[in-house]
Amino acid sequence: MQESLTIVKIGGNVIDDENHLHEFLKSFAGIRGKKILVHGGGKIATSIGHQLNIEPDYVDGRRITDDKTMDLVTMVYAGLINKKLVAVLQSLNCQSIGITGADASLIPAVKRPVKEVDFGWVGDPDSKKIPVDRWEIFFQNAWIPVVAPITHDERGNLLNTNADTIASTLAIALATKYLVSLVFCFEKDGVLSDAKDDSTVLNSLDWTKYNQLKETDKLVEGILPKLKNAFEAKQKGVASVVVGNSSKLTELISGNSGTKILINP
Amino acid sequence: MQESLTIVKIGGNVIDDENHLHEFLKSFAGIRGKKILVHGGGKIATSIGHQLNIEPDYVDGRRITDDKTMDLVTMVYAGLINKKLVAVLQSLNCQSIGITGADASLIPAVKRPVKEVDFGWVGDPDSKKIPVDRWEIFFQNAWIPVVAPITHDERGNLLNTNADTIASTLAIALATKYLVSLVFCFEKDGVLSDAKDDSTVLNSLDWTKYNQLKETDKLVEGILPKLKNAFEAKQKGVASVVVGNSSKLTELISGNSGTKILINP
Repeated sequence: MQESLTIVKIGGNVIDDENHLHEFLKSFAGIRGKKILVHGGGKIATSIGHQLNIEPDYVDGRRITDDKTMDLVTMVYAGLINKKLVAVLQSLNCQSIGITGADASLIPAVKRPVKEVDFGWVGDPDSKKIPVDRWEIFFQNAWIPVVAPITHDERGNLLNTNADTIASTLAIALATKYLVSLVFCFEKDGVLSDAKDDSTVLNSLDWTKYNQLKETDKLVEGILPKLKNAFEAKQKGVASVVVGNSSKLTELISGNSGTKILINP
Repeated sequence: MQESLTIVKIGGNVIDDENHLHEFLKSFAGIRGKKILVHGGGKIATSIGHQLNIEPDYVDGRRITDDKTMDLVTMVYAGLINKKLVAVLQSLNCQSIGITGADASLIPAVKRPVKEVDFGWVGDPDSKKIPVDRWEIFFQNAWIPVVAPITHDERGNLLNTNADTIASTLAIALATKYLVSLVFCFEKDGVLSDAKDDSTVLNSLDWTKYNQLKETDKLVEGILPKLKNAFEAKQKGVASVVVGNSSKLTELISGNSGTKILINP
Protein backbone atom coordinates (compact mmCIF):
# COMPACT_ATOMS: atom_id res chain seq x y z
CA MET A 1 0.00 0.00 0.00
CA GLN A 2 1.19 3.49 -0.86
CA GLU A 3 2.01 5.88 1.94
CA SER A 4 0.03 9.09 2.01
CA LEU A 5 1.41 12.58 1.49
CA THR A 6 -0.47 15.85 1.98
CA ILE A 7 0.47 18.92 -0.06
CA VAL A 8 -1.14 22.19 1.04
CA LYS A 9 -0.93 25.42 -0.93
CA ILE A 10 -1.65 28.80 0.67
CA GLY A 11 -1.76 32.28 -0.82
CA GLY A 12 -1.92 35.89 0.20
CA ASN A 13 -5.16 35.73 2.18
CA VAL A 14 -3.52 33.57 4.87
CA ILE A 15 -0.09 35.16 4.72
CA ASP A 16 -1.29 38.74 5.13
CA ASP A 17 -3.34 38.09 8.28
CA GLU A 18 -1.15 37.23 11.28
CA ASN A 19 -3.88 35.71 13.49
CA HIS A 20 -5.37 33.70 10.66
CA LEU A 21 -1.87 32.54 9.70
CA HIS A 22 -1.14 31.31 13.21
CA GLU A 23 -4.39 29.33 13.37
CA PHE A 24 -3.71 27.90 9.92
CA LEU A 25 -0.17 26.85 10.84
CA LYS A 26 -1.46 25.15 14.01
CA SER A 27 -3.81 23.09 11.84
CA PHE A 28 -1.02 22.37 9.35
CA ALA A 29 1.34 21.29 12.16
CA GLY A 30 -1.40 18.91 13.29
CA ILE A 31 -1.65 17.02 9.98
CA ARG A 32 -0.40 13.47 10.48
CA GLY A 33 2.22 11.91 8.25
CA LYS A 34 4.26 13.29 5.40
CA LYS A 35 3.41 16.80 4.25
CA ILE A 36 4.59 19.80 2.25
CA LEU A 37 3.52 23.44 2.52
CA VAL A 38 3.68 25.53 -0.66
CA HIS A 39 3.16 29.26 -0.26
CA GLY A 40 2.64 32.18 -2.58
CA GLY A 41 3.13 35.86 -1.92
CA GLY A 42 0.76 38.35 -0.45
CA LYS A 43 0.02 42.04 -0.27
CA ILE A 44 3.32 42.45 1.56
CA ALA A 45 5.22 41.91 -1.71
CA THR A 46 3.19 44.63 -3.40
CA SER A 47 3.60 46.98 -0.45
CA ILE A 48 7.39 46.46 -0.18
CA GLY A 49 7.66 46.76 -3.97
CA HIS A 50 5.79 50.03 -3.79
CA GLN A 51 8.23 51.38 -1.20
CA LEU A 52 11.14 50.28 -3.40
CA ASN A 53 9.52 51.86 -6.48
CA ILE A 54 9.12 48.44 -8.06
CA GLU A 55 5.69 48.48 -9.62
CA PRO A 56 4.08 45.50 -11.35
CA ASP A 57 4.86 45.64 -15.05
CA TYR A 58 2.30 44.56 -17.65
CA VAL A 59 2.63 43.88 -21.37
CA ASP A 60 -0.66 43.40 -23.23
CA GLY A 61 -2.36 42.95 -19.86
CA ARG A 62 -0.03 40.11 -18.82
CA ARG A 63 2.15 40.58 -15.78
CA ILE A 64 5.86 40.28 -16.48
CA THR A 65 8.85 39.76 -14.18
CA ASP A 66 11.75 42.13 -14.85
CA ASP A 67 15.10 42.14 -12.95
CA LYS A 68 13.82 44.31 -10.12
CA THR A 69 10.61 42.33 -9.67
CA MET A 70 12.63 39.11 -9.58
CA ASP A 71 14.78 40.56 -6.78
CA LEU A 72 11.63 41.67 -4.96
CA VAL A 73 9.89 38.29 -5.07
CA THR A 74 13.12 36.52 -4.09
CA MET A 75 13.40 38.77 -1.04
CA VAL A 76 9.79 38.58 0.01
CA TYR A 77 8.82 35.01 -0.94
CA ALA A 78 12.08 33.09 -0.32
CA GLY A 79 13.24 35.39 2.51
CA LEU A 80 10.61 37.13 4.59
CA ILE A 81 7.55 34.89 4.13
CA ASN A 82 9.36 31.55 3.88
CA LYS A 83 11.48 32.03 7.02
CA LYS A 84 8.62 33.48 9.07
CA LEU A 85 6.54 30.40 8.25
CA VAL A 86 9.46 28.17 9.25
CA ALA A 87 10.01 29.99 12.56
CA VAL A 88 6.33 29.73 13.53
CA LEU A 89 6.10 26.06 12.48
CA GLN A 90 9.25 25.30 14.50
CA SER A 91 7.60 26.88 17.55
CA LEU A 92 4.71 24.44 16.96
CA ASN A 93 7.13 21.48 17.02
CA CYS A 94 6.90 21.04 13.26
CA GLN A 95 10.41 20.30 11.96
CA SER A 96 10.13 22.50 8.90
CA ILE A 97 12.82 23.45 6.39
CA GLY A 98 12.30 26.39 4.04
CA ILE A 99 13.36 25.93 0.45
CA THR A 100 12.72 27.08 -3.09
CA GLY A 101 12.70 25.05 -6.29
CA ALA A 102 16.24 26.32 -6.95
CA ASP A 103 17.64 24.66 -3.82
CA ALA A 104 19.18 21.30 -4.67
CA SER A 105 17.39 21.83 -8.04
CA LEU A 106 14.33 20.36 -6.35
CA ILE A 107 11.94 21.77 -8.97
CA PRO A 108 13.58 21.92 -12.41
CA ALA A 109 12.07 24.63 -14.61
CA VAL A 110 12.64 26.44 -17.87
CA LYS A 111 12.38 30.15 -18.51
CA ARG A 112 9.09 30.64 -20.32
CA PRO A 113 9.83 30.92 -24.05
CA VAL A 114 9.12 34.29 -25.63
CA LYS A 115 6.12 34.07 -27.97
CA GLU A 116 3.67 36.97 -28.23
CA VAL A 117 4.73 38.16 -24.78
CA ASP A 118 8.15 38.10 -23.08
CA PHE A 119 7.18 37.30 -19.51
CA GLY A 120 10.72 37.98 -18.28
CA TRP A 121 12.08 35.87 -15.42
CA VAL A 122 9.17 33.47 -15.25
CA GLY A 123 9.71 29.73 -14.86
CA ASP A 124 7.59 26.80 -15.98
CA PRO A 125 8.30 23.64 -13.98
CA ASP A 126 8.08 20.14 -15.45
CA SER A 127 6.64 17.40 -13.23
CA LYS A 128 8.54 14.71 -15.17
CA LYS A 129 11.86 16.23 -14.18
CA ILE A 130 11.20 16.51 -10.44
CA PRO A 131 13.89 14.47 -8.63
CA VAL A 132 11.54 12.39 -6.45
CA ASP A 133 14.49 10.71 -4.66
CA ARG A 134 15.68 14.11 -3.39
CA TRP A 135 12.23 14.91 -2.00
CA GLU A 136 12.31 11.57 -0.21
CA ILE A 137 15.39 12.73 1.73
CA PHE A 138 13.14 15.22 3.49
CA PHE A 139 10.47 12.62 4.25
CA GLN A 140 12.99 10.03 5.46
CA ASN A 141 14.26 12.54 7.99
CA ALA A 142 10.82 13.82 8.99
CA TRP A 143 11.63 17.28 7.68
CA ILE A 144 8.61 19.24 6.46
CA PRO A 145 9.43 21.23 3.31
CA VAL A 146 8.04 24.78 3.18
CA VAL A 147 8.32 25.79 -0.46
CA ALA A 148 8.62 29.33 -1.84
CA PRO A 149 7.60 29.68 -5.51
CA ILE A 150 11.03 30.41 -7.01
CA THR A 151 12.91 28.15 -9.42
CA HIS A 152 16.07 28.61 -11.51
CA ASP A 153 17.13 28.15 -15.14
CA GLU A 154 20.35 26.18 -14.45
CA ARG A 155 22.27 29.13 -15.92
CA GLY A 156 22.49 31.12 -12.71
CA ASN A 157 19.16 32.94 -12.96
CA LEU A 158 16.23 32.73 -10.59
CA LEU A 159 12.70 32.41 -11.99
CA ASN A 160 9.38 33.59 -10.59
CA THR A 161 7.00 30.62 -10.65
CA ASN A 162 3.29 30.36 -9.98
CA ALA A 163 2.73 28.79 -6.55
CA ASP A 164 -0.40 26.86 -7.64
CA THR A 165 1.64 25.36 -10.48
CA ILE A 166 4.46 24.46 -8.06
CA ALA A 167 1.92 22.66 -5.84
CA SER A 168 0.29 20.71 -8.67
CA THR A 169 3.62 19.88 -10.35
CA LEU A 170 4.99 18.51 -7.08
CA ALA A 171 1.77 16.59 -6.43
CA ILE A 172 1.88 14.97 -9.88
CA ALA A 173 5.55 13.99 -9.53
CA LEU A 174 5.17 12.60 -6.03
CA ALA A 175 1.96 10.73 -6.96
CA THR A 176 4.25 8.16 -8.62
CA LYS A 177 5.31 7.08 -5.11
CA TYR A 178 2.69 8.35 -2.69
CA LEU A 179 -1.07 8.57 -2.28
CA VAL A 180 -1.12 12.35 -2.64
CA SER A 181 -3.81 14.61 -1.26
CA LEU A 182 -3.52 18.12 -2.72
CA VAL A 183 -5.28 20.99 -0.96
CA PHE A 184 -5.59 24.44 -2.53
CA CYS A 185 -6.50 26.99 0.13
CA PHE A 186 -8.01 30.38 -0.62
CA GLU A 187 -10.51 32.81 0.91
CA LYS A 188 -13.74 31.06 -0.15
CA ASP A 189 -15.24 27.83 1.21
CA GLY A 190 -14.81 26.21 -2.20
CA VAL A 191 -15.78 26.70 -5.81
CA LEU A 192 -19.01 28.68 -5.98
CA SER A 193 -21.61 27.92 -8.63
CA ASP A 194 -22.37 31.63 -8.48
CA ALA A 195 -19.39 33.89 -7.79
CA LYS A 196 -21.70 36.46 -6.21
CA ASP A 197 -23.19 34.06 -3.67
CA ASP A 198 -20.93 32.53 -0.98
CA SER A 199 -23.66 30.01 -0.09
CA THR A 200 -23.37 28.25 -3.46
CA VAL A 201 -20.31 26.11 -2.61
CA LEU A 202 -20.11 22.99 -4.77
CA ASN A 203 -19.25 19.71 -3.03
CA SER A 204 -17.54 18.57 -6.18
CA LEU A 205 -16.62 19.88 -9.59
CA ASP A 206 -16.07 17.87 -12.73
CA TRP A 207 -14.79 19.01 -16.11
CA THR A 208 -18.27 19.33 -17.66
CA LYS A 209 -19.58 21.50 -14.84
CA TYR A 210 -16.35 23.55 -14.85
CA ASN A 211 -16.76 24.37 -18.53
CA GLN A 212 -20.40 25.23 -17.99
CA LEU A 213 -19.50 27.71 -15.20
CA LYS A 214 -16.68 29.14 -17.24
CA GLU A 215 -18.89 29.74 -20.24
CA THR A 216 -21.60 31.41 -18.20
CA ASP A 217 -19.05 33.63 -16.42
CA LYS A 218 -20.06 32.28 -13.00
CA LEU A 219 -16.57 31.61 -11.62
CA VAL A 220 -14.84 33.78 -9.00
CA GLU A 221 -12.29 36.08 -10.63
CA GLY A 222 -8.80 34.70 -10.68
CA ILE A 223 -9.79 31.10 -9.87
CA LEU A 224 -9.27 29.80 -13.44
CA PRO A 225 -5.50 29.14 -13.23
CA LYS A 226 -5.99 27.45 -9.84
CA LEU A 227 -8.68 25.16 -11.24
CA LYS A 228 -6.58 24.43 -14.33
CA ASN A 229 -3.80 23.24 -12.00
CA ALA A 230 -6.30 21.33 -9.88
CA PHE A 231 -7.77 19.43 -12.85
CA GLU A 232 -4.34 18.69 -14.29
CA ALA A 233 -3.21 17.22 -10.96
CA LYS A 234 -6.33 15.06 -10.65
CA GLN A 235 -5.99 13.86 -14.23
CA LYS A 236 -2.34 12.97 -13.76
CA GLY A 237 -2.75 10.64 -10.83
CA VAL A 238 -3.11 12.75 -7.70
CA ALA A 239 -5.44 10.75 -5.43
CA SER A 240 -7.42 13.67 -4.04
CA VAL A 241 -7.62 17.33 -5.02
CA VAL A 242 -9.73 19.77 -3.01
CA VAL A 243 -10.18 23.56 -3.15
CA GLY A 244 -11.39 25.37 -0.04
CA ASN A 245 -11.03 27.81 2.82
CA SER A 246 -7.67 28.15 4.57
CA SER A 247 -9.50 28.60 7.87
CA LYS A 248 -10.96 25.08 7.51
CA LEU A 249 -7.81 23.07 6.78
CA THR A 250 -8.66 20.15 9.07
CA GLU A 251 -12.10 19.78 7.49
CA LEU A 252 -10.66 20.08 4.00
CA ILE A 253 -8.34 17.18 4.73
CA SER A 254 -11.01 15.02 6.36
CA GLY A 255 -13.32 15.66 3.37
CA ASN A 256 -15.85 17.70 5.32
CA SER A 257 -15.36 21.00 3.55
CA GLY A 258 -14.34 22.42 0.19
CA THR A 259 -14.90 21.38 -3.40
CA LYS A 260 -13.54 18.03 -4.55
CA ILE A 261 -12.12 18.04 -8.05
CA LEU A 262 -13.32 15.07 -10.09
CA ILE A 263 -12.39 13.79 -13.48
CA ASN A 264 -15.14 12.60 -15.74
CA PRO A 265 -15.29 8.86 -16.31
CA MET B 1 40.87 8.68 9.78
CA GLN B 2 38.51 11.61 9.91
CA GLU B 3 37.03 12.91 6.70
CA SER B 4 37.74 16.51 5.86
CA LEU B 5 35.18 19.32 5.69
CA THR B 6 35.80 22.86 4.45
CA ILE B 7 33.75 25.75 5.82
CA VAL B 8 34.13 29.06 3.99
CA LYS B 9 32.71 32.35 5.23
CA ILE B 10 32.25 35.34 2.93
CA GLY B 11 31.08 38.86 3.65
CA GLY B 12 29.98 41.99 1.86
CA ASN B 13 33.13 42.57 -0.15
CA VAL B 14 32.49 39.46 -2.25
CA ILE B 15 28.71 39.71 -2.32
CA ASP B 16 28.59 43.34 -3.52
CA ASP B 17 30.85 42.79 -6.56
CA GLU B 18 29.22 40.58 -9.20
CA ASN B 19 32.38 39.69 -11.16
CA HIS B 20 34.39 39.01 -8.02
CA LEU B 21 31.50 36.91 -6.68
CA HIS B 22 31.37 34.76 -9.81
CA GLU B 23 35.12 34.09 -9.68
CA PHE B 24 34.87 33.28 -5.98
CA LEU B 25 31.96 30.87 -6.53
CA LYS B 26 33.87 29.10 -9.31
CA SER B 27 36.73 28.52 -6.85
CA PHE B 28 34.29 27.41 -4.15
CA ALA B 29 32.58 24.99 -6.56
CA GLY B 30 36.02 23.55 -7.27
CA ILE B 31 36.79 22.62 -3.65
CA ARG B 32 36.88 18.86 -3.35
CA GLY B 33 34.92 16.97 -0.73
CA LYS B 34 32.43 18.11 1.84
CA LYS B 35 31.92 21.85 2.18
CA ILE B 36 29.69 24.60 3.55
CA LEU B 37 29.40 28.22 2.48
CA VAL B 38 28.39 30.76 5.14
CA HIS B 39 27.56 34.26 3.95
CA GLY B 40 26.92 37.60 5.58
CA GLY B 41 25.18 40.61 4.14
CA GLY B 42 26.60 43.43 2.10
CA LYS B 43 25.99 47.01 1.11
CA ILE B 44 22.82 45.83 -0.62
CA ALA B 45 21.11 45.35 2.77
CA THR B 46 21.98 48.91 3.76
CA SER B 47 20.86 50.26 0.40
CA ILE B 48 17.54 48.39 0.40
CA GLY B 49 17.03 49.38 4.04
CA HIS B 50 17.61 52.99 3.09
CA GLN B 51 14.95 52.80 0.37
CA LEU B 52 12.55 51.24 2.88
CA ASN B 53 13.38 53.89 5.49
CA ILE B 54 14.91 51.24 7.73
CA GLU B 55 18.02 52.85 9.12
CA PRO B 56 20.52 51.06 11.36
CA ASP B 57 19.62 51.70 14.98
CA TYR B 58 22.27 52.17 17.64
CA VAL B 59 22.06 52.22 21.42
CA ASP B 60 25.24 53.34 23.21
CA GLY B 61 27.13 52.84 19.96
CA ARG B 62 26.00 49.17 19.62
CA ARG B 63 23.91 48.20 16.65
CA ILE B 64 20.52 46.76 17.54
CA THR B 65 18.00 44.74 15.53
CA ASP B 66 14.43 46.02 15.79
CA ASP B 67 11.38 44.44 14.08
CA LYS B 68 11.90 46.27 10.80
CA THR B 69 15.62 45.51 10.66
CA MET B 70 14.88 41.84 11.33
CA ASP B 71 12.46 41.81 8.38
CA LEU B 72 15.08 43.55 6.24
CA VAL B 73 17.92 41.11 6.99
CA THR B 74 15.55 38.15 6.55
CA MET B 75 14.61 39.43 3.10
CA VAL B 76 18.09 40.33 1.96
CA TYR B 77 20.22 37.62 3.62
CA ALA B 78 17.88 34.59 3.54
CA GLY B 79 16.11 35.68 0.34
CA LEU B 80 18.02 37.74 -2.16
CA ILE B 81 21.66 36.89 -1.37
CA ASN B 82 21.13 33.26 -0.35
CA LYS B 83 19.11 32.28 -3.41
CA LYS B 84 21.35 34.18 -5.85
CA LEU B 85 24.35 32.27 -4.47
CA VAL B 86 22.44 29.00 -4.86
CA ALA B 87 21.42 29.76 -8.46
CA VAL B 88 24.98 30.61 -9.50
CA LEU B 89 26.46 27.58 -7.70
CA GLN B 90 23.87 25.36 -9.39
CA SER B 91 24.96 26.72 -12.78
CA LEU B 92 28.51 25.65 -11.80
CA ASN B 93 27.30 22.09 -11.13
CA CYS B 94 27.53 22.57 -7.37
CA GLN B 95 24.47 20.93 -5.79
CA SER B 96 23.81 23.69 -3.27
CA ILE B 97 20.87 24.13 -0.93
CA GLY B 98 20.22 27.49 0.72
CA ILE B 99 19.25 27.45 4.36
CA THR B 100 19.30 29.49 7.56
CA GLY B 101 19.93 28.33 11.11
CA ALA B 102 16.15 28.36 11.62
CA ASP B 103 15.51 25.70 8.97
CA ALA B 104 15.24 22.26 10.59
CA SER B 105 16.60 24.08 13.67
CA LEU B 106 20.06 23.48 12.24
CA ILE B 107 21.68 26.16 14.40
CA PRO B 108 19.96 26.45 17.78
CA ALA B 109 20.33 29.92 19.29
CA VAL B 110 19.05 32.05 22.13
CA LYS B 111 17.95 35.67 21.94
CA ARG B 112 20.78 37.67 23.46
CA PRO B 113 19.82 38.45 27.08
CA VAL B 114 19.23 42.11 27.90
CA LYS B 115 22.01 43.48 30.12
CA GLU B 116 23.28 47.03 29.64
CA VAL B 117 22.00 47.00 26.06
CA ASP B 118 18.90 45.40 24.54
CA PHE B 119 20.23 44.23 21.18
CA GLY B 120 16.74 43.33 20.01
CA TRP B 121 16.31 40.33 17.71
CA VAL B 122 19.91 39.12 17.94
CA GLY B 123 20.73 35.45 18.36
CA ASP B 124 23.71 33.78 19.98
CA PRO B 125 24.22 30.22 18.74
CA ASP B 126 25.61 27.43 20.91
CA SER B 127 28.01 24.97 19.26
CA LYS B 128 27.15 22.26 21.81
CA LYS B 129 23.52 22.26 20.65
CA ILE B 130 24.19 21.96 16.90
CA PRO B 131 22.46 18.74 15.67
CA VAL B 132 25.48 17.22 13.91
CA ASP B 133 23.39 14.28 12.63
CA ARG B 134 21.13 16.68 10.73
CA TRP B 135 24.12 18.34 9.04
CA GLU B 136 25.29 14.88 8.01
CA ILE B 137 22.08 14.45 6.00
CA PHE B 138 23.38 17.14 3.65
CA PHE B 139 26.82 15.56 3.37
CA GLN B 140 25.43 12.04 2.83
CA ASN B 141 23.45 13.34 -0.12
CA ALA B 142 26.25 15.52 -1.51
CA TRP B 143 24.21 18.67 -0.92
CA ILE B 144 26.31 21.77 -0.28
CA PRO B 145 24.69 23.96 2.41
CA VAL B 146 24.72 27.71 1.73
CA VAL B 147 23.96 29.30 5.08
CA ALA B 148 22.37 32.72 5.68
CA PRO B 149 23.05 34.19 9.15
CA ILE B 150 19.56 33.94 10.60
CA THR B 151 18.49 31.73 13.52
CA HIS B 152 15.30 31.47 15.60
CA ASP B 153 14.34 31.44 19.27
CA GLU B 154 12.04 28.37 19.13
CA ARG B 155 9.15 30.69 20.01
CA GLY B 156 8.37 31.74 16.48
CA ASN B 157 10.82 34.63 16.20
CA LEU B 158 13.74 34.96 13.81
CA LEU B 159 17.09 36.22 15.11
CA ASN B 160 19.83 38.18 13.37
CA THR B 161 23.10 36.33 13.95
CA ASN B 162 26.70 37.26 13.19
CA ALA B 163 27.89 35.30 10.16
CA ASP B 164 31.46 34.90 11.51
CA THR B 165 29.97 33.41 14.67
CA ILE B 166 27.76 31.07 12.62
CA ALA B 167 30.84 29.86 10.74
CA SER B 168 32.96 29.27 13.85
CA THR B 169 30.08 27.70 15.79
CA LEU B 170 29.41 25.26 12.96
CA ALA B 171 33.12 24.51 12.59
CA ILE B 172 33.45 23.74 16.32
CA ALA B 173 30.40 21.46 16.33
CA LEU B 174 31.39 19.59 13.18
CA ALA B 175 35.02 19.22 14.35
CA THR B 176 33.75 16.45 16.62
CA LYS B 177 33.25 14.34 13.47
CA TYR B 178 35.33 15.92 10.71
CA LEU B 179 38.78 17.35 10.11
CA VAL B 180 37.46 20.88 9.67
CA SER B 181 39.21 23.59 7.72
CA LEU B 182 37.66 27.00 8.42
CA VAL B 183 38.35 29.86 6.02
CA PHE B 184 37.35 33.44 6.82
CA CYS B 185 37.40 35.52 3.63
CA PHE B 186 37.59 39.28 3.58
CA GLU B 187 39.12 42.06 1.47
CA LYS B 188 42.71 41.83 2.74
CA ASP B 189 45.30 39.13 2.04
CA GLY B 190 45.35 38.23 5.72
CA VAL B 191 45.95 39.78 9.12
CA LEU B 192 48.27 42.77 8.71
CA SER B 193 50.87 43.56 11.35
CA ASP B 194 50.27 47.18 10.40
CA ALA B 195 46.69 48.02 9.35
CA LYS B 196 48.00 50.85 7.16
CA ASP B 197 50.33 48.65 5.12
CA ASP B 198 48.87 45.89 2.93
CA SER B 199 52.34 44.35 2.48
CA THR B 200 52.58 43.37 6.16
CA VAL B 201 50.51 40.17 5.92
CA LEU B 202 51.34 37.72 8.70
CA ASN B 203 51.76 34.06 7.73
CA SER B 204 50.46 33.09 11.11
CA LEU B 205 48.99 34.68 14.19
CA ASP B 206 49.08 33.32 17.72
CA TRP B 207 47.36 34.62 20.81
CA THR B 208 50.44 36.48 22.12
CA LYS B 209 50.98 38.32 18.85
CA TYR B 210 47.26 39.04 18.56
CA ASN B 211 47.21 40.72 21.96
CA GLN B 212 50.33 42.68 21.07
CA LEU B 213 48.72 44.00 17.90
CA LYS B 214 45.49 44.75 19.69
CA GLU B 215 47.25 46.73 22.40
CA THR B 216 49.26 48.78 19.95
CA ASP B 217 46.16 49.50 17.85
CA LYS B 218 47.69 47.92 14.75
CA LEU B 219 44.72 45.77 13.68
CA VAL B 220 42.44 46.56 10.75
CA GLU B 221 39.18 48.11 11.96
CA GLY B 222 36.41 45.61 12.43
CA ILE B 223 38.64 42.53 12.38
CA LEU B 224 38.49 41.93 16.15
CA PRO B 225 35.20 39.93 16.26
CA LYS B 226 36.38 37.86 13.27
CA LEU B 227 39.66 37.03 15.03
CA LYS B 228 37.85 36.29 18.27
CA ASN B 229 35.76 33.71 16.40
CA ALA B 230 38.84 32.40 14.61
CA PHE B 231 40.78 31.83 17.86
CA GLU B 232 37.80 30.26 19.56
CA ALA B 233 37.38 27.81 16.67
CA LYS B 234 41.07 26.89 16.69
CA GLN B 235 41.05 26.43 20.45
CA LYS B 236 37.96 24.24 20.34
CA GLY B 237 39.28 21.63 17.95
CA VAL B 238 38.98 23.01 14.43
CA ALA B 239 41.97 21.54 12.54
CA SER B 240 42.81 24.60 10.49
CA VAL B 241 41.67 28.21 10.66
CA VAL B 242 42.85 30.76 8.10
CA VAL B 243 41.93 34.39 7.41
CA GLY B 244 42.55 35.82 3.94
CA ASN B 245 41.44 37.29 0.64
CA SER B 246 38.26 36.04 -1.00
CA SER B 247 39.94 36.39 -4.40
CA LYS B 248 42.53 33.77 -3.35
CA LEU B 249 40.28 30.99 -2.08
CA THR B 250 42.19 28.14 -3.74
CA GLU B 251 45.49 29.37 -2.26
CA LEU B 252 43.90 29.88 1.16
CA ILE B 253 42.79 26.26 1.16
CA SER B 254 46.12 24.90 -0.10
CA GLY B 255 47.92 26.92 2.59
CA ASN B 256 49.65 29.27 0.15
CA SER B 257 47.93 32.47 1.20
CA GLY B 258 46.35 34.12 4.21
CA THR B 259 47.11 34.13 7.92
CA LYS B 260 46.96 30.83 9.80
CA ILE B 261 45.51 31.10 13.27
CA LEU B 262 47.62 29.23 15.85
CA ILE B 263 47.07 28.46 19.49
CA ASN B 264 49.98 28.82 21.86
CA PRO B 265 51.39 25.57 23.21
